[in-house]
Parts: sequence; C-alpha cells; structure tokens
Amino acid sequence: MTMTVETPADNRPYSPGLEGVLAGETSLGYVDGANGRLLYRGYPIGELVEQGSYHAVANLLWTGDWDPKHKLPTAPIPGPVMDVLRALPPSAKPMDALRTAVSAWGTTQDLPWPPTDAQARALTSFSPSALAAFARLRAGKEPIEPDSSLDLVEGFLYQLNGTRPDAATARSLDAYFIVGAEHGFNASTFTARVVTSTRSDIASAVAAAIGTMKGPLHGGAPSEVVDQLAQVKSTADAERWVRETLDRGERLMGFGHRVYRAYDPRAAALRKVAESMPTKPDWLQKAIDVEDVALRVLAEKHPDRALKTNVEFYAAPVLMGVGLTPDLFAATFSLARHAGWTAHVLEQAADNRLIRPDVRYIGPAERHLPA
Amino acid sequence: MTMTVETPADNRPYSPGLEGVLAGETSLGYVDGANGRLLYRGYPIGELVEQGSYHAVANLLWTGDWDPKHKLPTAPIPGPVMDVLRALPPSAKPMDALRTAVSAWGTTQDLPWPPTDAQARALTSFSPSALAAFARLRAGKEPIEPDSSLDLVEGFLYQLNGTRPDAATARSLDAYFIVGAEHGFNASTFTARVVTSTRSDIASAVAAAIGTMKGPLHGGAPSEVVDQLAQVKSTADAERWVRETLDRGERLMGFGHRVYRAYDPRAAALRKVAESMPTKPDWLQKAIDVEDVALRVLAEKHPDRALKTNVEFYAAPVLMGVGLTPDLFAATFSLARHAGWTAHVLEQAADNRLIRPDVRYIGPAERHLPA
Repeated sequence: MTMTVETPADNRPYSPGLEGVLAGETSLGYVDGANGRLLYRGYPIGELVEQGSYHAVANLLWTGDWDPKHKLPTAPIPGPVMDVLRALPPSAKPMDALRTAVSAWGTTQDLPWPPTDAQARALTSFSPSALAAFARLRAGKEPIEPDSSLDLVEGFLYQLNGTRPDAATARSLDAYFIVGAEHGFNASTFTARVVTSTRSDIASAVAAAIGTMKGPLHGGAPSEVVDQLAQVKSTADAERWVRETLDRGERLMGFGHRVYRAYDPRAAALRKVAESMPTKPDWLQKAIDVEDVALRVLAEKHPDRALKTNVEFYAAPVLMGVGLTPDLFAATFSLARHAGWTAHVLEQAADNRLIRPDVRYIGPAERHLPA
Repeated sequence: MTMTVETPADNRPYSPGLEGVLAGETSLGYVDGANGRLLYRGYPIGELVEQGSYHAVANLLWTGDWDPKHKLPTAPIPGPVMDVLRALPPSAKPMDALRTAVSAWGTTQDLPWPPTDAQARALTSFSPSALAAFARLRAGKEPIEPDSSLDLVEGFLYQLNGTRPDAATARSLDAYFIVGAEHGFNASTFTARVVTSTRSDIASAVAAAIGTMKGPLHGGAPSEVVDQLAQVKSTADAERWVRETLDRGERLMGFGHRVYRAYDPRAAALRKVAESMPTKPDWLQKAIDVEDVALRVLAEKHPDRALKTNVEFYAAPVLMGVGLTPDLFAATFSLARHAGWTAHVLEQAADNRLIRPDVRYIGPAERHLPA
C-alpha cells in the first residue's frame, strides 16, 4: 500500500519567455529603443564606429577603459584544436564547427575561476583563426598562420582568403564587428551568464552562447537580406521591386525591429562607413540605393508604422562586400559578439549569484507503476 | 556638438538569480522538498528505481509512456567524432571532453527542427560511448565498440573497463542513472531550454548544459563525499570521525539540501538498492554505517535543523563501487542527466517561446569619446 501525497496548485504569476522580467544588471550595453540609441559603457555606437576599432571596443567592454592603442592580433590555434578542426566533416555547419572549436580550445587551456580579461582576450583572438581554418579546410586548402602585425579583423580576412585585405574592406568589416560586439541580454548573452553563474569556465560559456545564437529565432544573421537584394537587378529597378514585393504581402527583410522604434543606430553607423568609402563594393552601393527607395515606399504605404532600417540590412552587404559567403554570416556574427559575451562573463563572475529560476509542475499527480 | 539623451532609471523589481521566478512549466519532474518527494511524470522516484531501469525512465521522460521492454544500447561513435576524441589532450577534463564530443557529434548529424525523441535517444546513447572512449584514450588504451546486446549502463561500463559488469554492479549504477536523470529547473536544464528556445538544435542544447553542469555551484558531483568517506578507517571509527569533524566546524558532505527538508528520496532509493545487494562493495557498506552514525549525531547536535542525507552521499559510494575514479563523477552525472535535458528540449520545442529576459542598465550615462 503506497501513500499518495497531493500535489498543490502553484498559482504564482508566470511570464512565458521571461519577457519583461529583469534577470540581471549590466554596465556594458544600453539598448534604448525609443530613442534609437545603443551605448557601450556610455559611449554611443556611432562614435565608437567612427573613432574606434574592434580591439578598442572589446577592451572597453572588458576593462571599462578607452585605450585604442593596443591591437588585438588573432591567436595561433593550439595543436590539438587544429587536429579537431581537421577531423570535422567538410559538411559541418560553420556555427557547429566554431562551437566545437571553442569547446576543444577549452580542453587545452587552464581556465581557473574567476575568469579574467586575459582569458577573454585569448578566446576572442582564437576564434577568428579557428573559423578561418575551418573554412579553408572544408575547401581542401591549408590553414594560414596568424600574422601578428595585423589587427583582429584584418587577420581574420587574411587567414580566410590568403591575401591581406585593403583598408576599405578591413574598415567595413571592423565596423560590422563593432556594431555586433554587444547588445544587452539577448538569448545567447543570457546563456553565457547562466553558464558562468555556476562558476563554470569561459569556454563553456562561449560555446553555449554560440549554440544559442545558432537558432533562427536569435536574430542577427542577415542572410535573408542577401536573398532579397540579389533580386534587385539595378538601382533603376529598385522601386518596382520594392512595390511588387510589398504588394505580394511579403516582408522587406532588414526593416523594422523588436526594440528599436527609431532608426537602428547600428544601421546608421554602418551606412555612414559605407558612404565614406572612396570606392564601394557593388553590394554596398545597391543597399544604399534600395534603402532610400524602401524607406520612402514604406512611409507612403504604412504611415502609421515605424518601419525603419535595422542592422541586418547593412550587415548583409558589408559581409558580402568583404567576400564572405552567406553560410559564414552567422559564425562571423558570433566572432563579433565574442567581445560582449566574454565581457558579460567577467561581469557575471565579478558579482556572481547562481541563476536558477523556478518551474511550475503541470504534469500528472502522483501515480503508481503497475505492480 | 553632440546631443546627449538622459538615461532614465529602471525601477522595475528584480530578483537576483531569478530566485523564485517562474520561468516555465513542465510535466517532467516534480521536486517536492517539503514532503521529500521526486516524481517523474507523476511516478515516485523510489518506484522507478525499484521496478524500472534507465532506458524505461528515459523513454518515460521523452514520450510520457511507461514501456520498460525496449533496451537502449550505447551507440557507435561516428568516425569524425572518434578522430576528435583522439585529438584531445589526455589532460583534458572529462567534462570538457564530453562537451566537445557532443558538440562534434552535432556536426555529423542532420538535426532538423523540431527535435524528436529519436534525436534524444541517439544523443543519449552516443554520449556514454564517447566518455568511455575518452577515458580509455587518455590512458593509452583503444576504445571498445558497443555491444548492442547490453543496456546503456552495462554498455558504458563494458566500454570503459573492457569487461562486462556483474549484475549487482550494473544494477547500482543503473539506479544512480535513474535518480540523476531529471530534477526540474536546475541551471543546466534551464540552459538547455534557453538554447532550444531560439530553435537551435539538441546537440547545441546538451553541449551547453554540460558546460553549465561543469560549474561547482551546480551541485550533484559527489567527489567531496569520497574525500570524507576515505577518512573513515572503519565502521567502528565512524562515530569518532563524525564528532571530530563537526567539532572542528567542518560540514559533513552529503547531508542537507537546498530544497529537500525531508530525507532526499533519491538517497533513500539508492540506499535501498545498496541494502538489497547480496554482496556490497566496501564503499557502500561503509556509507551505510557512516550514515546511521552521522544522522544520529547530527540530530543530537542540531535538533532544530533538518539535516538529512542527500543524494550525493549515496552517489559517491555507488560510483566508487562500480570502479569509477572521482574525476569521472561529474561527467557520469552528465550522462545520467541526458534523459532529462533532452526531454526538456522536446518539451520546450513542443510549445516554444523565445526565453529572453530583460536587464537593467546601471552603467555610465551617455558620454563621449575624446575628440
């Protein structure tokens, strides 16, 4: 005879998806959707793109100090990790390969608690080498050793393509890395903080964040914009294409944002970089032309809605413009976000508390197995 | 001249660590600390250990059906993943190796959304092979192919040791796997659900969960109990050792629990299995003797506190008893928790909503870079 205890109802309020629930505090990024602002430690994203570089922004996020002098070259790949990359099937998705590389990197490092900015720097400078090596290996090419005279984004392009990028190409990808570096508590950043909150290590946290960013609901991987821009044959054709697309009831990719009601400040910063280039890649020029038409037509058709350009709209042509194939976009976004993820790891560790929410049980009441 | 917008104070209530915040609903596990109950889909853990086996419990968690007939043999390791395991340094921590193996496994699989119980079964049956292979490789031994006639826990021990376990050994580790399979929203399970909520894949979710479980604040890795039990020379010595340890102000590891005020039902189930064995490993007999003394002395010294035995107290001697070294305990716990993690992945996907909490910005107000 078994006694069965009642399971009382749990009537506490519950916010699906934790929407609107404050899960932490941060000094790193401030997303001000109403005013179209994004601040990293107080500095507006537009200024950081205009005057900064990814290494300075990463250092700002890690340490709080603005010190643009020191470069951040890509790091060599530890021998065991290179063997891991060689073992992966060429068909592996780049996000899966990068997640595995970061996890394997963790097996080769001593990563004592608490995480340090030296650990953050080491991991952030390792991952571009790993992604570039995987992209070459899957194409049957040999990986290229880092050139320590190059900054992180230049080094990534060099190790990917085998040639050093020109200044305009490096500048536009660097701007993309800056605007992608940090964005408050998205799902991947939150994951990195939950992992860290158990006093696990920075490689575990970043591998988990990459796995989270891989999901299509995470956002930030602009390959759909590429598909649409490819349909626009020329600038003269842009208005016809925008109107026909909207008339078919389809969405224009790269417009509208969950948080930003005003113009996405990241898109503004990227457009400004694009406009200042002496010679623009065709993709960038086309994006500028299409945006002008699209904003005019959207305002005419939906005067009540604030459908402004978002960061994906300019991310796509920047990434295409520097020669990346769309299947590398998400992993490249992950490289950029390393600065923010690792900064959140440091911030979580500095004032740590286990992140462990409750769950409401809605399953069967106590019952018993057939004897 | 740059305009600076004020950053308004965010006065919403905030629960550090999300303590007490309901972050989801589940039909899988019910942790009833006040009454010392743990239910999986309504069935008490004690009955599941007594009448069940890990494969039946895993299947119950995945599908909701109690069908103890079908075994769950360990799965072969895909060729690229074996090469990854061979590439890892022998000094790699087993948790890091397992996380990397799961991540690499993901590069070899087609894992379309939504995740399925076939995916859960495939991953849960892969990981014991991977951990056993790594444990052999780091010792300079060759991995052993799965024997499809063995059930998961037997297969794990066979692939680890090269000999098929006796019935009592397999039974005690199977009981450990059952009590470790699921426990509501701990940090690793929550991580798996956050990853899944972006529509990422099951390998990303489980790799992230392993990285979360690695942290010492996660709990559940009972190697500290081993250290203490090793100090007890004999049963006759137990009372002296318990009193001296408490008099020095040290904690007795394996007693007391954050949630369970009554006797931890998982410890009760493991003790029952231990007591029913015709011949007990020395470690188990010693644990039983020490527990009796410790509970008596704790009740005498702290009559006001409910310091009862927790699951770690019996997990340690079970894991030692089956021949595992303490540095494999955490990874073995991860193998057991695969059933719960993957069941939560399925449950999250079945009624999905992006898990994306808010954060309060407490950094500098808008400021500007030196010109």
